Amino acid sequence: MSSRNDCIALDQHDELAPLRNEFFLPEGLIYLDGNSLGVSPKASASRARELIEQEWATDLIRSWNKAGWFDLPVKLGDKLAPLIGANAGEVVVTDSTSINLFKALAAALRIQGLDPAKAQRRIIVTERSNFPTDIYIAQGLSQWLDRGYLLRLVDAPEELHAAIDDDTAVVMLTHVNYRSAYLLDLGGITAHAHQKGALVIWDLAHSAGALPVALNDANADFAVGCTYKYLNGGPGSPAFIWVAPRHLAGFSQPLSGWWGHAAPFAMEPSFQAGSGIKRALCGTQPVVSLALVECGLDIFAKTDMEAIRKKSLALTDLFIDLVETRCAAHPLKLVTPRPHHLRGSHVSFEHPHGYAVMQALIERGVIGDYREPHIMRFGFTPLYLRFSDVWDAVDILLDILDTAAYRPDQDRVAVT
Amino acid sequence: MSSRNDCIALDQHDELAPLRNEFFLPEGLIYLDGNSLGVSPKASASRARELIEQEWATDLIRSWNKAGWFDLPVKLGDKLAPLIGANAGEVVVTDSTSINLFKALAAALRIQGLDPAKAQRRIIVTERSNFPTDIYIAQGLSQWLDRGYLLRLVDAPEELHAAIDDDTAVVMLTHVNYRSAYLLDLGGITAHAHQKGALVIWDLAHSAGALPVALNDANADFAVGCTYKYLNGGPGSPAFIWVAPRHLAGFSQPLSGWWGHAAPFAMEPSFQAGSGIKRALCGTQPVVSLALVECGLDIFAKTDMEAIRKKSLALTDLFIDLVETRCAAHPLKLVTPRPHHLRGSHVSFEHPHGYAVMQALIERGVIGDYREPHIMRFGFTPLYLRFSDVWDAVDILLDILDTAAYRPDQDRVAVT
Repeated sequence: MSSRNDCIALDQHDELAPLRNEFFLPEGLIYLDGNSLGVSPKASASRARELIEQEWATDLIRSWNKAGWFDLPVKLGDKLAPLIGANAGEVVVTDSTSINLFKALAAALRIQGLDPAKAQRRIIVTERSNFPTDIYIAQGLSQWLDRGYLLRLVDAPEELHAAIDDDTAVVMLTHVNYRSAYLLDLGGITAHAHQKGALVIWDLAHSAGALPVALNDANADFAVGCTYKYLNGGPGSPAFIWVAPRHLAGFSQPLSGWWGHAAPFAMEPSFQAGSGIKRALCGTQPVVSLALVECGLDIFAKTDMEAIRKKSLALTDLFIDLVETRCAAHPLKLVTPRPHHLRGSHVSFEHPHGYAVMQALIERGVIGDYREPHIMRFGFTPLYLRFSDVWDAVDILLDILDTAAYRPDQDRVAVT
Repeated sequence: MSSRNDCIALDQHDELAPLRNEFFLPEGLIYLDGNSLGVSPKASASRARELIEQEWATDLIRSWNKAGWFDLPVKLGDKLAPLIGANAGEVVVTDSTSINLFKALAAALRIQGLDPAKAQRRIIVTERSNFPTDIYIAQGLSQWLDRGYLLRLVDAPEELHAAIDDDTAVVMLTHVNYRSAYLLDLGGITAHAHQKGALVIWDLAHSAGALPVALNDANADFAVGCTYKYLNGGPGSPAFIWVAPRHLAGFSQPLSGWWGHAAPFAMEPSFQAGSGIKRALCGTQPVVSLALVECGLDIFAKTDMEAIRKKSLALTDLFIDLVETRCAAHPLKLVTPRPHHLRGSHVSFEHPHGYAVMQALIERGVIGDYREPHIMRFGFTPLYLRFSDVWDAVDILLDILDTAAYRPDQDRVAVT
């Protein structure tokens, strides 16, 4: 790509371009952080107004039935399902990703524990570079189970196959690495794990809404994920959990709250898990945050994940190419895999002053984020980013680097 | 009270009357269900607009720091603390009541298990009439711990003391019963349990914001509760958890997510619990629902729990008196205890056609709710209810009963 005009030409032929209008995008900002917090659908503000002023303030308690609040986790799960290769009735939107991972891991370990041939397995395989909270949750759960489980932390994706062996109870992986954007082979790893007798939990935090996921086609077991990144559900919007239909009858998890009960209003003093995916629910959900998830999902219904993936790869290809050619004089090192089949929808570059350069970018209106150590992370969200945005972002990056317009010694502030 | 005018006179001398103006109250409705879903503070709609349009849509990822999203659980906990007799730094607003109860129960059982003198205790004492989800959570947790715990379900409050014995690891009680409004003696039961070597978890779902709670004065151990009832946080708004300062250092719970980590942004691959009450946090919170909790808490800051309790008792006294005198010809039976020291802030009456009568009341604009079996439940929220509302509600109830204007055979629909 040799000029900004070439990028504008790409924008003019972009079939997803009209969807940009569905979002509120602040003037003068190039937002490359939709992989951390997605932008606001225009519909979100009016949906929140309706929910607060009509459903809560006016209709009050009646809205649990009248406005369908009680059914929201399943309704939203049904809308989300096609984006991850799942069917209606297999997904609920509820709680946080961490808590849903806890449920899935507990259920998976229990299924293995009940199988005489596998009850002795004590290993949970994951990557050392997995998003830390996933590892923390596995540590938390396994420390609390008296029989104890051991985490096997794998250092590189290439070592995963060998690490999954006859001692492995559960494999717990994030599909797209939050730092490097390395995309794991969901189908291949699942098949290998099954062949070894292990169950697999996939964290789709950086893949749901970013690229096609084929859970059922891959014969996957469990998945969890996030709705506030690529799915634009709003800050901290509730997460999701998917359970393969074949595991639903045996799906049991310790967070057995009343929303997961077979008869939540019968007020029985004994827990009886609900049928189907509802048994993954626990307590009352934050309705305002939950309802806003629908605004983002409704935009996805206007396109499909193949089109999104195609543009995502074009955007990340363009960004890598422009940075490597235009900023070649500067010590930037690509962290993200170059092959398409190994890459998610964000791109990370290492720079010795990565934190400072990122702060300078943000001051100039290019919002990416920083991850230890030295990594500048740029997210590419095909629904609302333009090819010309990519050009402009690299333009500003180049100017900052050429003029050394950053403060290498500035204090680091925590970033989310 | 012999007339509506007497009630109006009470309203004119009600020191809390001005606070009614802080809330949105639909025309023509007498809302006696604030114990299930509190009404909307007028500030909620504009706070949501600010959050969505400015903090999310415009400032985007920067709001985690700039708008203080990341600190909300602690900030709101600090504001809530005085309402329950706690101090700043002891409470966080986060997750659901069920999940917080899971954390507190797990932590309490662990503390007992680490004490050689108590490690053999296997009994969790609670009431059979406790809100079911509390029992479900205890069942869920104890079934998942290999060493196993047994629930001792007590049938009447008077039997609680005897049921708490040298085998009791943890006592887990709801301060005000969701159905009867029976108010347990928080101080006395806590003292007795401690004398027996047990720890106590209090569920304040129906007491936080309804009456003074003195957690520190009572030397209580743990508490959880709800913000969407008397605290007017919005539908399903996140719950709270309190940990006594003396237990904080030893507080450990299995839902160890990144928000509970000592250095959440260091991305360390090993969990290290944060200092203080932050270790009760788990994953990312639903920011919109969470932020709205502040609107309700800010209204409580304009009064105090003693004034609220005084009016609450006056309202429930009046309601009981009016129903029992004016509706004496009808088969209504008071379920709620008559003595002030045994009563929360709602009143329940049994009626053979309780469900049908409640539906008729709702159709006439008097919103209470129904709980199996045969119980009509009426919540009295001193911040926005008038004495004349109580008169008018009883007036309508009397008319419905006198004219038998209800359909005893109508189908029952699930109510929340």
